[in-house]
Amino acid sequence: MDFYKVVKNRVSTREYKSDAITNEILDRVLDAARLAPSGKNGQPWRFIVVKNIETRKKLVGACRGQRFIQEAPVTIVACGYESRAYKKMGGYWNSLPVDIGISLEHLMLAAEVEGLGTCWIGAFNEEEVRNLLDVPKEVKIVALTPIGYPDCKKRFNSRKNLSEIVMYDKWQDK
Amino acid sequence: MDFYKVVKNRVSTREYKSDAITNEILDRVLDAARLAPSGKNGQPWRFIVVKNIETRKKLVGACRGQRFIQEAPVTIVACGYESRAYKKMGGYWNSLPVDIGISLEHLMLAAEVEGLGTCWIGAFNEEEVRNLLDVPKEVKIVALTPIGYPDCKKRFNSRKNLSEIVMYDKWQDK
Repeated sequence: MDFYKVVKNRVSTREYKSDAITNEILDRVLDAARLAPSGKNGQPWRFIVVKNIETRKKLVGACRGQRFIQEAPVTIVACGYESRAYKKMGGYWNSLPVDIGISLEHLMLAAEVEGLGTCWIGAFNEEEVRNLLDVPKEVKIVALTPIGYPDCKKRFNSRKNLSEIVMYDKWQDK
Repeated sequence: MDFYKVVKNRVSTREYKSDAITNEILDRVLDAARLAPSGKNGQPWRFIVVKNIETRKKLVGACRGQRFIQEAPVTIVACGYESRAYKKMGGYWNSLPVDIGISLEHLMLAAEVEGLGTCWIGAFNEEEVRNLLDVPKEVKIVALTPIGYPDCKKRFNSRKNLSEIVMYDKWQDK
């Protein structure tokens, strides 16, 4: 699918069919995440692919009751090692959230190509997800997404105009 | 261009021709950034498009002497408001780095479609870039990229295998 079409068509999906996703398709979208760039090529990311229905039901509780997580057949938990990320972004901060932001978005755009829906989930309790999945303390959990075939029409969010977010040569109040 | 081909072909470009980029092309890649998802659709990002050669020369100094910044005809500075981002990722942290990671990567993948090169730059001094571009203190500068036509062959970084970064249902040491 044409790149610009993928970017335009991707939306947050909050209603899913329970239809299974083949391993071949899952591997293709995970491979798009794998190829992402990261600070100093640290590749600090790790992806936990949760298919177990009992675990997905418990994830709903750790994600403020967002029930569509258990409707989709798979949840992907994006986490990673701050110790393996670049530690001096801007001079002083850790690149892990940026690295994983890039990588998980590669996966979500690939999912769009495959006719699958996803939804960035930032509203979760890190400790509860950590305990559910036995994630060690040195690994930060950055975001989750359900992945599955949409059971709804696309709902596009509005976006600011380009003139509201782009400036030339120097800062201008926007 | 096919999405998977874009993801596979994108590399960090560190040698550029000085050839100008048309405004039509620049607007297309900026529009890909504009369409990115963000926490609570906050769209906290702002992009400063630096064409001025004197400013680009000074940016080299603020980015640890990475001279290819002044070779490319344009530098894009990705920054944004933490106050307009989602403040409770995982329960307790600000989504700005994730939001901008996603958005700037949209731009970089679009650049690949247009035959343009880019390079994630995290090695910069935030205060020096801030002073150069009059960026207010409440705006965080997350990353920069030069953008221009490559003057080099593609150099692909190695990546871990899928089996090294993917786990099923629970954490396993990787």
